Amino acid sequence: MAASAEENSEDLQTWPKFVLFGDSITQLAFCDGGWGAALQHVLQRKCDVVCRGLSGYTTAWGKLVLPQVINKHNATDVVLVTIFFGANDASLKEMSPKHVPLDNYKTNLRDMLEYLQQLGLGPDQVILITPPALDEQAWQKHCQGMGSSINRLNEVTGQYAKACWEVAEERKVTCVDLWTAMQKEKDWQRFLEDGLHLSRKGNQFLAQHLVPLAQEGTNHLPIIFPLSEDVDPYQPEEALLHKTEAKED
Amino acid sequence: MAASAEENSEDLQTWPKFVLFGDSITQLAFCDGGWGAALQHVLQRKCDVVCRGLSGYTTAWGKLVLPQVINKHNATDVVLVTIFFGANDASLKEMSPKHVPLDNYKTNLRDMLEYLQQLGLGPDQVILITPPALDEQAWQKHCQGMGSSINRLNEVTGQYAKACWEVAEERKVTCVDLWTAMQKEKDWQRFLEDGLHLSRKGNQFLAQHLVPLAQEGTNHLPIIFPLSEDVDPYQPEEALLHKTEAKED
Repeated sequence: MAASAEENSEDLQTWPKFVLFGDSITQLAFCDGGWGAALQHVLQRKCDVVCRGLSGYTTAWGKLVLPQVINKHNATDVVLVTIFFGANDASLKEMSPKHVPLDNYKTNLRDMLEYLQQLGLGPDQVILITPPALDEQAWQKHCQGMGSSINRLNEVTGQYAKACWEVAEERKVTCVDLWTAMQKEKDWQRFLEDGLHLSRKGNQFLAQHLVPLAQEGTNHLPIIFPLSEDVDPYQPEEALLHKTEAKED
Repeated sequence: MAASAEENSEDLQTWPKFVLFGDSITQLAFCDGGWGAALQHVLQRKCDVVCRGLSGYTTAWGKLVLPQVINKHNATDVVLVTIFFGANDASLKEMSPKHVPLDNYKTNLRDMLEYLQQLGLGPDQVILITPPALDEQAWQKHCQGMGSSINRLNEVTGQYAKACWEVAEERKVTCVDLWTAMQKEKDWQRFLEDGLHLSRKGNQFLAQHLVPLAQEGTNHLPIIFPLSEDVDPYQPEEALLHKTEAKED
């Protein structure tokens, strides 16, 4: 082999990271037709789409773990971040100890934005996503199957969506208001799997909103490694043994 | 916010990486229903599935860039690697300057395995994948559309698949013989999009072979961040401010 493990060991090609941070709707983003996978497909050879979705987590928990997800050791590699919480925060107070009061939800989102800003991430590098609309009929059925009463209401989730939108406005951060966007569509319940989590169609619907934002937020990034047509098959070393950044000089 | 950017900055939670290294069939692994996305879905909160697919690349080019993909700086984070080349190597000599002679293809695969071994990756951490079967009729049509004659043949690709399998046997590395597995199935041509690249069904077929291997290769890995049910909602700090590794002590 031309290059041994030792010789080329300094030349790691760093790939920017697009971090998806949120609850189960983020954790499931690479399901069949998933919105995370759609982003990774569109951003191929531009950046890694990194899934940091944590089922059952709220903004209160998210802000505790965020410094373990992004901190000074990796912040310069982060090109974009989605913050997508609220579906659990909006659990009814009397039904779940996970309930996060509306004001705290806003404060938690603000804290996370501020923390990312401290790390050098500009407001144009963050996308807030509101919780999706809740199909109460389907979710009630799901809850009944689990032996409990319905623990969320669409109107309450809507308050969290509005709060998320307000924080985004206040901090000049882009917001995908999924709750509102969904309900503008005919038969929006088809976007949900069990009334709460996104179905294949719901994943695609969210991807439609995120893909243009992701493209906009990454259009300054170079394609990593030379394109096949830019490699001379008779002298591939010339193109391939120089890193992308170096090639741009 | 409880933790400032400074306070917690040492506590980055490292996620193991499953690196998919190959040509366009790897680059496209996060398409709708893609095999890379399927792996990421199954391995949620265990590791990042990292796409290092490079359209049009051969083993000759792959071995040149591999030290920029994995080297001493990141090798300890790598839990699994797929090496999936051959579809371009098997281009007919008289039809493409990218053609890699069969013996060179074997040498290149051996070199890559040896390089990874030098970095401390055991043979159980690498999965070789043979090129898929070629649907000559569909690929000819595609080539005609591009104004050229057919530049690959299924039988020739089969020789590369056999060579890949032999290298895997020799080096005690697991091999998914996609070329052979596909042709055991009825109407295997449905696994291909254009005669060469995997269709949605082909992506799923490959995923079916890889998922059990990925699970086996990662079953020693802990779930990253505490599961929701292991977090006390009244004292979440206790569970969430300790990293996964620490929790296992």
